[in-house]
Amino acid sequence: MNSISNNSNSNTAILLMHCPDQPGIVAKITEFLYQNNGNVIYLDQHVDHQEKVFFMRIEWELEKFAIPQDKIAEYFGTLIASKFKLIWNIYFSKRVPRMAIFVSRMSHCLFDILARHQAREWNVEIPIIISNHPDLEPLVKKFGFDYRIFQISESNKADQEKKQIELLKEFRIDFLVLARYMQVLSDSYIEEFPNRIINIHHSFLPAFPGAKPYHSAHERGVKIIGATSHYVTAELDAGPIIEQDVARISHTDSIKNLIRKGQDLEKIVLSRAVYAHLQHKVLAYKNRTVVFS
Amino acid sequence: MNSISNNSNSNTAILLMHCPDQPGIVAKITEFLYQNNGNVIYLDQHVDHQEKVFFMRIEWELEKFAIPQDKIAEYFGTLIASKFKLIWNIYFSKRVPRMAIFVSRMSHCLFDILARHQAREWNVEIPIIISNHPDLEPLVKKFGFDYRIFQISESNKADQEKKQIELLKEFRIDFLVLARYMQVLSDSYIEEFPNRIINIHHSFLPAFPGAKPYHSAHERGVKIIGATSHYVTAELDAGPIIEQDVARISHTDSIKNLIRKGQDLEKIVLSRAVYAHLQHKVLAYKNRTVVFS
Amino acid sequence: MNSISNNSNSNTAILLMHCPDQPGIVAKITEFLYQNNGNVIYLDQHVDHQEKVFFMRIEWELEKFAIPQDKIAEYFGTLIASKFKLIWNIYFSKRVPRMAIFVSRMSHCLFDILARHQAREWNVEIPIIISNHPDLEPLVKKFGFDYRIFQISESNKADQEKKQIELLKEFRIDFLVLARYMQVLSDSYIEEFPNRIINIHHSFLPAFPGAKPYHSAHERGVKIIGATSHYVTAELDAGPIIEQDVARISHTDSIKNLIRKGQDLEKIVLSRAVYAHLQHKVLAYKNRTVVFS
Amino acid sequence: MNSISNNSNSNTAILLMHCPDQPGIVAKITEFLYQNNGNVIYLDQHVDHQEKVFFMRIEWELEKFAIPQDKIAEYFGTLIASKFKLIWNIYFSKRVPRMAIFVSRMSHCLFDILARHQAREWNVEIPIIISNHPDLEPLVKKFGFDYRIFQISESNKADQEKKQIELLKEFRIDFLVLARYMQVLSDSYIEEFPNRIINIHHSFLPAFPGAKPYHSAHERGVKIIGATSHYVTAELDAGPIIEQDVARISHTDSIKNLIRKGQDLEKIVLSRAVYAHLQHKVLAYKNRTVVFS
Repeated sequence: MNSISNNSNSNTAILLMHCPDQPGIVAKITEFLYQNNGNVIYLDQHVDHQEKVFFMRIEWELEKFAIPQDKIAEYFGTLIASKFKLIWNIYFSKRVPRMAIFVSRMSHCLFDILARHQAREWNVEIPIIISNHPDLEPLVKKFGFDYRIFQISESNKADQEKKQIELLKEFRIDFLVLARYMQVLSDSYIEEFPNRIINIHHSFLPAFPGAKPYHSAHERGVKIIGATSHYVTAELDAGPIIEQDVARISHTDSIKNLIRKGQDLEKIVLSRAVYAHLQHKVLAYKNRTVVFS
Repeated sequence: MNSISNNSNSNTAILLMHCPDQPGIVAKITEFLYQNNGNVIYLDQHVDHQEKVFFMRIEWELEKFAIPQDKIAEYFGTLIASKFKLIWNIYFSKRVPRMAIFVSRMSHCLFDILARHQAREWNVEIPIIISNHPDLEPLVKKFGFDYRIFQISESNKADQEKKQIELLKEFRIDFLVLARYMQVLSDSYIEEFPNRIINIHHSFLPAFPGAKPYHSAHERGVKIIGATSHYVTAELDAGPIIEQDVARISHTDSIKNLIRKGQDLEKIVLSRAVYAHLQHKVLAYKNRTVVFS
Repeated sequence: MNSISNNSNSNTAILLMHCPDQPGIVAKITEFLYQNNGNVIYLDQHVDHQEKVFFMRIEWELEKFAIPQDKIAEYFGTLIASKFKLIWNIYFSKRVPRMAIFVSRMSHCLFDILARHQAREWNVEIPIIISNHPDLEPLVKKFGFDYRIFQISESNKADQEKKQIELLKEFRIDFLVLARYMQVLSDSYIEEFPNRIINIHHSFLPAFPGAKPYHSAHERGVKIIGATSHYVTAELDAGPIIEQDVARISHTDSIKNLIRKGQDLEKIVLSRAVYAHLQHKVLAYKNRTVVFS
Repeated sequence: MNSISNNSNSNTAILLMHCPDQPGIVAKITEFLYQNNGNVIYLDQHVDHQEKVFFMRIEWELEKFAIPQDKIAEYFGTLIASKFKLIWNIYFSKRVPRMAIFVSRMSHCLFDILARHQAREWNVEIPIIISNHPDLEPLVKKFGFDYRIFQISESNKADQEKKQIELLKEFRIDFLVLARYMQVLSDSYIEEFPNRIINIHHSFLPAFPGAKPYHSAHERGVKIIGATSHYVTAELDAGPIIEQDVARISHTDSIKNLIRKGQDLEKIVLSRAVYAHLQHKVLAYKNRTVVFS
């Protein structure tokens, strides 16, 4: 088996935050951690000088940290966050995130994720895989995952979505990955999981949103195709972009070839986006993302 | 000086053609050249199986070719082209193409081209550089080129375009390169030079056509920017794409940075497109291009 | 399931050939096919002007072809190949290639291949998977493949290789894929399968051949890492390169990160190389390859 | 003219530093700046956990800074640097760096730099251009630069180098750029400018060091070529790498084509490296570099 497990033996806290830019923030936060014996092992910050917003991801070891884990949020909120109008989240490396995967009939993105899980490349639990088609059930079950089918029609959509949301809550799912899931989620569904639904779109957005982007790319005669992973928002294919990549094509590539080459992009781009999310390195702000190094 | 001159000592003919796909075309044309002692040094062909169209570029040495150069077009037209409903052009390597460059105030694309000309990387003549601004005149003149200023306003545009076209004809210009020229040519102007006006657009088309694409890219939060070189058609930024390339960016890049990084893309992409055109390797068909290897 | 199956309904013949460059080859071969009602659906040729060698891949439909399939090789050999000193192979699209995969303990390349097989992306049979470790057996069996373990030590290597070769012959294996197989094959083994063993090396060859290339890349401080797929020859990591690709890294990437990012390169590069080989598009010549479009 | 001038109106100080990693460094330095009204506009830091070394680049506005500019180094050295065993340099944005360019006969890298200078893309002075050949003199002089020729032979090399060093000192040159300068500098020359001589090598190092890398790349049959910009050290082509980039090639590319495509890589890679150096974003450590974001 691979030995590249996501360092799951680490015991750290991670703060992800943003606030109006102002002098002294880094000094104040790093001093707070230093004074309480929190050994910082990661710090990356960014100032958007146009929007005048400060962003930071900071991670420190908990072993000798003076504040008990269950009190950190309270202390940090009182002593630091309130003074700088911080919007923030705290994560702990010992807590393994729980991810639900949504698929339809194409398997390339799903298998890429399951293979990483199998090889312990990612530190994640996958309690459930949801689909609107039965096709992938046999194989997914061989891998040992729970596969639930929700066939969706115009008439039952609202009802099926309600049942899915209940199931996701029952399984305490942290975030959703749409691995070429061919259904559009309703707005109310999306609002249940703000910046916690990751989609892969098979084009270099904002070019070719919507259906059949490879056909459109072929029609337009582009020399490069792409794939885009983004958080899902109410507007289709318009949410904050997490990751993109491209591949060179030429006039010799038929639409079939574009689809074949594109699928490799899709699975790699989606997996990179999910990995960044799992590392708590993505911060969405005003329909853009900060993806820390 | 660079020794990579475009092999200007060669004495070859180049046929660029397309026609309805049908059996025996390659056999017929290669046999025609073989029977007349035309040593083929390049052959690339492509069949668009969807459109059922055959495309080919073939190049052969003229030295021992049995048909005199000024008769080749006639013989080929009579003996071959008419039978296969070929649409074709013939070029001779000894004839140096004549290019006009259009610029406004940004110099990066222009200088990249002039530097290649200076280093004899390209086999091209540049009889004239046209601009709607005087800014770059001093520098261009130091390089020894003819620089003509046509200031364009809403009221004089038709008149100025007419004068430009006369000048281009007077100088026997083969094709135009818009090197970040910030004027839209009128339809009648474009019709004078079908598939002979090469533009560089500072985005990954079809994303962000029109003005200020770097601002739009920043606003949309893309993770990759691009540049696109295409033949100019009546619809803005919608002509057949010759070449595209991209560069990875991140949230740390300000709009200024996007512009800076993008300019490197623009000049390289435009120069690649111009080079392919100079080599007679680009064939436009139905708003797409075949760019031979 | 994916619908991008390798067009297995097609019924074509494919010729892959090279010979000393000389006038009239293309004319002669295309005429031969045309006269016998062979509709050409693919033609790509290349002349190495330095070595004076002509290379071609040509594919035509068999349906109306005048020469019976089992006579094509004889006729072509007699009427064409002997006259031009062609070195050539013929393949038929109806014949599904048989591939053996070799693995050790890392699963990423293997799973990438099995997922493509499962999704019918490739037209290939995988009668056997060979390993020197038992680790991946349970999973491979779930996929329904035959997994054979050959533990290799210095003392038993010759013997185990002999048994492997017998097994490969018994299964009528066409070519071998070393999917991060951590054993060096002996020269005599390699000679049994000339240009029919495809390896993936986890560096941008010729940089960092041999063991631990990611450690070497980190030590050297490169800004880009790569992966290389090549045919195996007697000299380690020095065979004809089929495909390479790269990924940008930075000082922030630990060796662990290089390995993680590199594994994505490895699996994609290996799969691209295997796909090209399956399409009969790779021709090795003098330690280089021609990879047709 | 371009308006992307390197923000030369800014009035900032930049600290570039490294030291043994230890708790509290960021807190101490950011607190020091905050207490003295230094508004931080850039902070990027990196910890090499393997080497246990801390690296940082921090930039702050001088306008309201409490410590006079000519005292900053003294105060910072006494109050901070000595306590953390910092190795550090301070730069001021108002001080325009002075660069010498070395060329031989190829113009592509030189012209790319001069065009950027002309367009005010970079905030740099180029007091002198040194060459071992007269070829580029006429054009460089038209641009208005000082061009000095030092013909180098085995017998006069030591003497010529001595004269060059004197000239560089007389012109108070900060750093040297070898823009395809085809002479190897002696060790003593290099020692005069540690990590202040930037070279461009026309391969993807460590592949193909030394002479004629494009010939070697063609011979080896690689599918991708590259270029590498690095600081010059005593060992040829082995110094700390600042920037690399690559381009895809194929069997259709002759050596001439590799050279042509490679020259575009060379000029862009070199210019990116020089720009990073000008921004004081490169920190060399143990034959690797940290290139801040």
